[in-house]
Amino acid sequence: MAARTKVVEYVDQNADSFIERLAQAVRIQSISSDARHRQDVIAMGKWLNDQLVSLGVTTKLVDLGTHVMQGQTLPLPPAILGKLGEDKKKRTVLIYGHYDVQPALKSDGWNTDPFELVVDKEGGKLIGRGATDDKGPILGWLNVIQAHKSLGLDMPVNLRFCFEGMEENGSEGLDECVVDEVRKGTDGYFSGVDCVCISDNYWLNTRTPALTYGLRGIAYFSINVTGPGQDLHSGLFGRMVHEPMTDLIKLMSRLVDNNGNILIPGVDEMVPPPTPEEINLYREMDYTTADVEEAAGGPIAISEDKVTVLMARMRSPSLSLHGIEGAFSAAGCKTVIPSKVGGKFSIRLVPPQTPENIIPLVNAYLESEFAKLNSKNKMTIEYLHGGKPWVADVKHWNFEAAKRAIEAIYKKTPDYTREGGSIPVTLTFAEALGVNVLLLPMGRADDGAHSTNEKLDRSNFIEGTKVLGTYLYEVAAAV
Amino acid sequence: MAARTKVVEYVDQNADSFIERLAQAVRIQSISSDARHRQDVIAMGKWLNDQLVSLGVTTKLVDLGTHVMQGQTLPLPPAILGKLGEDKKKRTVLIYGHYDVQPALKSDGWNTDPFELVVDKEGGKLIGRGATDDKGPILGWLNVIQAHKSLGLDMPVNLRFCFEGMEENGSEGLDECVVDEVRKGTDGYFSGVDCVCISDNYWLNTRTPALTYGLRGIAYFSINVTGPGQDLHSGLFGRMVHEPMTDLIKLMSRLVDNNGNILIPGVDEMVPPPTPEEINLYREMDYTTADVEEAAGGPIAISEDKVTVLMARMRSPSLSLHGIEGAFSAAGCKTVIPSKVGGKFSIRLVPPQTPENIIPLVNAYLESEFAKLNSKNKMTIEYLHGGKPWVADVKHWNFEAAKRAIEAIYKKTPDYTREGGSIPVTLTFAEALGVNVLLLPMGRADDGAHSTNEKLDRSNFIEGTKVLGTYLYEVAAAV
Repeated sequence: MAARTKVVEYVDQNADSFIERLAQAVRIQSISSDARHRQDVIAMGKWLNDQLVSLGVTTKLVDLGTHVMQGQTLPLPPAILGKLGEDKKKRTVLIYGHYDVQPALKSDGWNTDPFELVVDKEGGKLIGRGATDDKGPILGWLNVIQAHKSLGLDMPVNLRFCFEGMEENGSEGLDECVVDEVRKGTDGYFSGVDCVCISDNYWLNTRTPALTYGLRGIAYFSINVTGPGQDLHSGLFGRMVHEPMTDLIKLMSRLVDNNGNILIPGVDEMVPPPTPEEINLYREMDYTTADVEEAAGGPIAISEDKVTVLMARMRSPSLSLHGIEGAFSAAGCKTVIPSKVGGKFSIRLVPPQTPENIIPLVNAYLESEFAKLNSKNKMTIEYLHGGKPWVADVKHWNFEAAKRAIEAIYKKTPDYTREGGSIPVTLTFAEALGVNVLLLPMGRADDGAHSTNEKLDRSNFIEGTKVLGTYLYEVAAAV
Repeated sequence: MAARTKVVEYVDQNADSFIERLAQAVRIQSISSDARHRQDVIAMGKWLNDQLVSLGVTTKLVDLGTHVMQGQTLPLPPAILGKLGEDKKKRTVLIYGHYDVQPALKSDGWNTDPFELVVDKEGGKLIGRGATDDKGPILGWLNVIQAHKSLGLDMPVNLRFCFEGMEENGSEGLDECVVDEVRKGTDGYFSGVDCVCISDNYWLNTRTPALTYGLRGIAYFSINVTGPGQDLHSGLFGRMVHEPMTDLIKLMSRLVDNNGNILIPGVDEMVPPPTPEEINLYREMDYTTADVEEAAGGPIAISEDKVTVLMARMRSPSLSLHGIEGAFSAAGCKTVIPSKVGGKFSIRLVPPQTPENIIPLVNAYLESEFAKLNSKNKMTIEYLHGGKPWVADVKHWNFEAAKRAIEAIYKKTPDYTREGGSIPVTLTFAEALGVNVLLLPMGRADDGAHSTNEKLDRSNFIEGTKVLGTYLYEVAAAV
């Protein structure tokens, strides 16, 4: 029997113990955004490191220093770097994952204790915080290594690991850590890496495995309008003065139309139109507008045409109006003319857009529109943060290997997807290492990663583990 | 010497003791919006009642029941009704005031203890919470009565009083109390009232006394837009769905232009254009655009023309955008597509506008504008609260009497003003009694009624007391 077949059989035979290990991981409340749980995040890092070491992985815990959060100076949980195999004849795959999780309280609406993994046998679901984001996928890799170790099999590739404990809280310190490690060259853990595999996103739907080759970037702005020296009473001043809110709402209304078209000249136009081949890719995806409407919780899809809807998320920029800082925002009535208001909006970016080429377009447009208002108020545009988009070459052997692994395990061709959001470390790896980065999701679209009752389907955990193992063989065999 | 002259002299001779009595009143922390101070409000009512009784006024304390505030069931402070004189040959003047005050803490930015009246001799200011709003004006009336009592003079008119202790907290219970008392006819305290005088607003500036003959009404709305079942991530859903914020901002942007013109068809048009005579009234007012800019704290007057600016507040409706409930409103960045947003705005109303004739115009316009958006979201218009505007006949003998009193004391013709805000009890008296209501302000535009370092100029207290006394003689003499 071929090694890869033995691994697949081992996974089926040891599924229950794999699930038990996931339950152990879920039990550690590694919530990175809550100061009270910082020691739990660090404990989770230690647990993961112990697991890796016991499976034969050489590890290094990188101290990322401290940061101030919720008024306290806290130690950052360590980044865990690891290596398994130094065979120069084999390819080397770098694997990323994160061992921290989102907050969760039973009172948020969970049906069960979020930190006790519940195996819902009927629905085939593994329910618990972190099951799908991102403890399940990390443990998928541990399962694969364990299979080889137990079966006495050589790994088909060299593995490198980078696991962090701050992903749900801005990945503080990680970029520097990656860049530092790359700079060490042959002395570093990332020496000789041929490709990267990240399992930290989701299928497009609940039916078809996916490979993800793109992420949108973002540029986040605040339009600040000021005029009065203090908040004014609308009875005393209404119609006597230029009101900042009137100006701001006019400007915000000129950013995007109700079909999602961006009205800032040059922004939409910067993106090349889709090729017929690309359109075909969207047409063939296993998706309907019902999928987006189910996910959004309302019949509000921008179009009845699935290709239009998919392209809107995957290959188009988008502009969302998030809210206004400084205006009245509570329940009830307040007859205030707010003196200083900041309208928040962001643009999701796709190649060739970057914050650098978008900011001047935003500034020029808003300044010109504000001038048209002839207002005596003052307007400034504040760029708050941003990041570049990322798109990978799907014809690269890394993607081909993953495609063949999915076809072997799921007997289905994967959807090739681009995500509308960002996973900043993707770009960090792509730029620092200069190699192909693959996003290989384990979970489904309805896993509820940041929501209540987060789950990973049992079949996604077990079949997903098989995909990861098979992928390594396909990488080794790829030409 | 004529009686009125003796009264004026008495006021000058007793100014210091009048200021001392004001200091006593300021010392009682009658903050009606703070449950911890409710007993102080009641104590203030008792103090005022004792003063009235000692001056010969027959009083009745009306129990207004209880209300729930800050989680507690609290007794409402009583309304104090009073009568002085039953001479059928004399006119009867009803006087309104309120004995409660706004909250004040030294830490808010007061230079002195807000509840110890400071006599700033250099600036001639009486500084303390309630000095101008509204303890000073109430005590002006007590001063006038004391002068007559001490001098052994008959009052030139019969007086009726209505003092409340909840004005700064919604005047709870007062409307019912007034209407009930009017319904009692000749058995009630308001029997035979010929006119009303309210001293609870301010001059237009710091230089010229004013008579106020109009108040704007209000209609307050929320435009509610919903679509998604829950807040969405802008990365995952941006451009795929109709976003409620995009729709709401479009609708809000179509309500008012940057010069304050209301874009809802029929609203501005409902107000008759000013007559040349009326325009002249505004032209003659002691006012410049610098006054509004100083008050607003910025050079943002809607026009350089003072007539335009004054008419905007006094005889035009205004539409202010207050804010958005349900959108992101904090500092920082949040990439949310809010699922349910409510845009708050209100229209200040002038005759012949009423909430009843404005609501249908707002509904029709917003429904038509929303239909143009072709959005799949749902929009509803919520009318939150409102009140009618009020305008009095300035040619009535009540206003003529006040004008002559001001001319006699200040040697100036008063500004005839309309306020942009509301004093709801004005309309209650006008409608329940069917008599002319006069607003006769004692304080200046810069008194800081609801702000820190509230003051009443010493001269406004003393000369203002003289005006009140003289006004009663002019009422008696008016034809």
